[in-house]
Amino acid sequence: MEFSSFLTSLGTSFLIFIVLMLLFAWLSGKPGNSVIYYPNRILKGLDPKEGGSRTRNPFAWIHEAMSSTEQDVISASGYDTAVYFVFLSTVLGILVLSGLVLLPVLLPVAATDVGVKIAKTTSNGTFSNLDKLSMGNVKEKSSRLWAFLLATYWVSFVTYFLLWKAYKHVSGLRADALMSPEVRAEQFAILVRDIPPVPEGQTRKEQVDSYFKRIYPESFYRSMLVTNNKVVNKLWEELEGYKKKLARAEAVYALSKKTGKPEGARPTNRIGFLGLIGKKVDSIEYYNEKINEVTPKLESEQKDTLREKQLDAALVFFSSRVAAASAAQSLHAQMVDKWTVTDAPEFRQMIWTNLKIKFFQRQKYLPFLKPIVDIDAIKTVLEAYLPQLALIIFLALLPKLLYSLSKAEGIPSEGHVVRAASGKYFYFIVLNVFIGVTVGGTLFSTFKDIKKDPDSIPDLLAAGLPVNATFFITFVALRFFVGYGLELSRIIPLIIFHLKRKYLCKTEAEVKEAWHPGDLRYGTRFPGDMLIVTIVLCYSVIAPIIIPFGVVYFGLGWLILRNQALKVYVPAYESYGRMWPHMHKRILAALIIYQLTMFGYFGAKQFIYVPLLLPAIILSLIFGYVCSKKFYRFFRDTALEVACRDLKEIPNMEQVFRSYITPSLSSDKIEDDQFEDALSQVSRSTSFV
Amino acid sequence: MEFSSFLTSLGTSFLIFIVLMLLFAWLSGKPGNSVIYYPNRILKGLDPKEGGSRTRNPFAWIHEAMSSTEQDVISASGYDTAVYFVFLSTVLGILVLSGLVLLPVLLPVAATDVGVKIAKTTSNGTFSNLDKLSMGNVKEKSSRLWAFLLATYWVSFVTYFLLWKAYKHVSGLRADALMSPEVRAEQFAILVRDIPPVPEGQTRKEQVDSYFKRIYPESFYRSMLVTNNKVVNKLWEELEGYKKKLARAEAVYALSKKTGKPEGARPTNRIGFLGLIGKKVDSIEYYNEKINEVTPKLESEQKDTLREKQLDAALVFFSSRVAAASAAQSLHAQMVDKWTVTDAPEFRQMIWTNLKIKFFQRQKYLPFLKPIVDIDAIKTVLEAYLPQLALIIFLALLPKLLYSLSKAEGIPSEGHVVRAASGKYFYFIVLNVFIGVTVGGTLFSTFKDIKKDPDSIPDLLAAGLPVNATFFITFVALRFFVGYGLELSRIIPLIIFHLKRKYLCKTEAEVKEAWHPGDLRYGTRFPGDMLIVTIVLCYSVIAPIIIPFGVVYFGLGWLILRNQALKVYVPAYESYGRMWPHMHKRILAALIIYQLTMFGYFGAKQFIYVPLLLPAIILSLIFGYVCSKKFYRFFRDTALEVACRDLKEIPNMEQVFRSYITPSLSSDKIEDDQFEDALSQVSRSTSFV
Repeated sequence: MEFSSFLTSLGTSFLIFIVLMLLFAWLSGKPGNSVIYYPNRILKGLDPKEGGSRTRNPFAWIHEAMSSTEQDVISASGYDTAVYFVFLSTVLGILVLSGLVLLPVLLPVAATDVGVKIAKTTSNGTFSNLDKLSMGNVKEKSSRLWAFLLATYWVSFVTYFLLWKAYKHVSGLRADALMSPEVRAEQFAILVRDIPPVPEGQTRKEQVDSYFKRIYPESFYRSMLVTNNKVVNKLWEELEGYKKKLARAEAVYALSKKTGKPEGARPTNRIGFLGLIGKKVDSIEYYNEKINEVTPKLESEQKDTLREKQLDAALVFFSSRVAAASAAQSLHAQMVDKWTVTDAPEFRQMIWTNLKIKFFQRQKYLPFLKPIVDIDAIKTVLEAYLPQLALIIFLALLPKLLYSLSKAEGIPSEGHVVRAASGKYFYFIVLNVFIGVTVGGTLFSTFKDIKKDPDSIPDLLAAGLPVNATFFITFVALRFFVGYGLELSRIIPLIIFHLKRKYLCKTEAEVKEAWHPGDLRYGTRFPGDMLIVTIVLCYSVIAPIIIPFGVVYFGLGWLILRNQALKVYVPAYESYGRMWPHMHKRILAALIIYQLTMFGYFGAKQFIYVPLLLPAIILSLIFGYVCSKKFYRFFRDTALEVACRDLKEIPNMEQVFRSYITPSLSSDKIEDDQFEDALSQVSRSTSFV
Repeated sequence: MEFSSFLTSLGTSFLIFIVLMLLFAWLSGKPGNSVIYYPNRILKGLDPKEGGSRTRNPFAWIHEAMSSTEQDVISASGYDTAVYFVFLSTVLGILVLSGLVLLPVLLPVAATDVGVKIAKTTSNGTFSNLDKLSMGNVKEKSSRLWAFLLATYWVSFVTYFLLWKAYKHVSGLRADALMSPEVRAEQFAILVRDIPPVPEGQTRKEQVDSYFKRIYPESFYRSMLVTNNKVVNKLWEELEGYKKKLARAEAVYALSKKTGKPEGARPTNRIGFLGLIGKKVDSIEYYNEKINEVTPKLESEQKDTLREKQLDAALVFFSSRVAAASAAQSLHAQMVDKWTVTDAPEFRQMIWTNLKIKFFQRQKYLPFLKPIVDIDAIKTVLEAYLPQLALIIFLALLPKLLYSLSKAEGIPSEGHVVRAASGKYFYFIVLNVFIGVTVGGTLFSTFKDIKKDPDSIPDLLAAGLPVNATFFITFVALRFFVGYGLELSRIIPLIIFHLKRKYLCKTEAEVKEAWHPGDLRYGTRFPGDMLIVTIVLCYSVIAPIIIPFGVVYFGLGWLILRNQALKVYVPAYESYGRMWPHMHKRILAALIIYQLTMFGYFGAKQFIYVPLLLPAIILSLIFGYVCSKKFYRFFRDTALEVACRDLKEIPNMEQVFRSYITPSLSSDKIEDDQFEDALSQVSRSTSFV
């Protein structure tokens, strides 16, 4: 890539960004678009145009985002989003503090050296202007390399310092969340799995109740057996579908009265395949009939499910938070694979179908990466030196697959699956994209040799590094200009919404569904960010010019996502910052990759003091170990000192309990006594903490 | 070593064994020796000669040992000893089941082959008779190697099967012990460490009490602050020393009245250095004076210690076992390095001085083996191809060092330190002795090359293996004939006791101290056994003739130690089988070493189907993983379903609490209210489970 093409690429991206920004300024001002640009506020019942937006200044959102506090983010978007911002600002801090030292020091040191001719450069185009500013321009064995060595340490220490501060901060955030006086149902429940077979002469419910009553005579409240809801869910969805269609048909009929003849035109539909063939019927009558037909079926299936389809899992409710927190951490059965307990996920995070998976089937598929990496198609694509855009598109296809893989591990909670998938995604892109592109890009011809002798990878990597810097700079710039431009302007959701509203939506509920914003999806957003962190860290000393691009990526990201968090996205669930240990570990992993890269690169520069980098790597490992010892367990278990804080009111245990009943099993018509088969009764009057 | 010298060595060992057995039969019959041969029974207040011993049949003890049940062992010597017998019988079972198949199959297969000339053999003496029976006699690439390959699998499967059975059995034993209706103080207590600094305006006691009362309003009973007892312990020991000396002086005086003049000779002593110089004083008066002098000092120091020398650790007592078991497993503070809790060790296992060590100082010294292995003296000794006896003596010197190393890790419990030291000892002897002797013995001249190219170790190891078989057979035989002969006859304790009684002991207490038997010391006994397990397993297929020797070692060991457990040793503490997971892991480690050795040896035999052994190694790793997943946690934490069993009586909490007061701080004169400074008061009337 020549310098001019680099500038062209950068310029084009910037132009697209400017256009998207202008579009945003224009479109977000239109009242009809509020549901796209302020859905979070609308759903919360707030005035979308509150605050700066009222002034019609198209840049007011910047001021709003800058002046918002962490507490604003938490109340608008929850703790997980706030933790994501801790991640963004930590990385931003690392890059800014690194850049402040590295740019003024390393650029002159590199640029004033007499320069080395890099043989390989020509094959990737001559690129003298940027190359002169990189470590590639420094001669082998030069004493100028000392500056780069010290710079490597500076970046490491900045990272340790900010990561430590951030971990402490997030731990505090999590404590605040967990000790909040709000009654949160999941804090009163535990999830029990691997319940042994029912003993002779007892029902499953009696078995569970007597087991927990014996251990927790004071604090046990009630249990809820998990049932196999496949059939009942299907019936319920069918019923809900008919109800929606009925509402739609009624809306169409009402509309036709206004616009057409005063008596209106009753809508009709065909009852054959996809509504395209078969008999034509009156829709309103037909759906009413169907609803009357399915409702009793559902009711009898509900009874049947509760009575006959109990699985070997249950939710157990306690009358105090401390009791539940303590129970979730304790071993209950002598055999570890029986009566296993964990803290209950939030109701909206429950993955009911995973609850029946047995203890030993839930073990992680560690060698999961192998088959993926070995798929020939993927390999071919990777080896073919992906152009930047193709790379981005390719990366967009992976998350679904990784999500399913993680779900197959038998994890009972949505948030946990997202974290697991996100981890796989990170290692996948770092291993395959970053290392693949670096090695594959410069040394494609010798790629086969590397496979035969993997020990030579560091050398080859080091030799090829500076040449790739421009590729990655363009990649980063494309990500932030186009990526964040699209993010802020929300062009695609806007177009889809307007199309849907015009041609598809008939009822209010359908319109609302059309503009519902979804959540921040940090599960896939974060690994993408991590790829940038890895790239920028790895090049920070080799080609410090990449740092400003990294700063812009995370600065712009912080700003634009702050706006989105405050006004657009609605969190799907809340894990109280459980993502942070993963973020922490992966930033540290990126740092270690960076240190290893530098180790290899200094070696390639024949710098004899390169062993002086080893302490940095060891320090990173020790830092990671100490952090996980000091902070991690609180992210897995709830500390009792936190759980024992007072609640603002005596919890309504009945309400806590009911919040875990799936909609397909709950119905106004079902009396409490019908639940008796699967749900245990209130055992006794209980005292609350 | 020639065949005749092998037979001589074996014969000599056997002769020594016979002599020791005869000595035992003769000496154990003498009534004056009961305290040496039946101390466990005497201390329990039982008739030493009960049962078979009464018949004066010198082999009655064998019948007694054989017919004793596990329950007998538990009531005589506790659960830990019973678990040690599970270990012995499991290994015995593995060797017997292996031998039953391997001996009749492999010996003919090896012996009928035409034979290979082993170049190295001459350097270690010709040894054709035994060599013919080993795998070394089978030609390279021979299809007879299939039999040896299948034999390797047979041994592996036998091991898996018996280990699984044993783990299940020990888990059941532990559950029995923990759910016993006896009130055991340690089941009601937890140990709290890393208590944060005392807040302004509170005492340490108030801080601890309010913290736990808040979390456990129902079940918290009382707390006991840990104090720095260095000074008070010294004073107390001084006082106890004077008391003992006074008793001794009085006994001497009383004796002199009987034997000498009727008015007796008042004993005297010198008060200078070691009682050798200085003024001569009347002992009885002098010690009485001293006791009167030290007693008030001790009393004031006791008060001072309780008030001023509190550490940041405490024992917290609960009114129910379930509450204590659950509390010991739960995270209490948001920062993991504050308010850390574990289950309380038994009082007699407490290592008080370790309690003040802070969280991050307690991390394991992982690289502990390096400095030891690198000590030049040890290296020289090891490299010099130790003769068997020198090896045994050398191994006897290590345990103390490893015990101190483990204690320095900051572990609060004696039993835990023993387990940790025992683990280090195992890895030390297996790495240094077994591999060292094997490699060093045959390939001493090429030892330096191995260091340069450690990858070649497997090859060299494999080539040198069969030649070393005789060395190890002699080693095993020496261990069981001489080792167990000495064990059963107790010649050395007997001689020491008689010498002490004759020349040193004056009071009853001193005599009792002289014959007190101590415990089984499985901490050092077990790694020694494991060395034999490793050796016999590794050679089981290469030279199956070693198996009968292994069987005799463990059979004889089981028999003789059963006798010792029932009649001699007195357990120092009880950990309810916590040693088992270590035993399990190390037997499995020995199996994997064996599989790796076989892998190397088949490779050296140029057997092209050697990769067929890889599944065995992977299977071992999976087996270990599944076992630790299924069983391990119950050995770390107490299962609540076990802890919630009924007690046979309402526990006397005051007594439970008092059982943890160190003798140096407890005194009849100290009133309860003096404890108030360090020990919290009974908070409220409590209900018991």
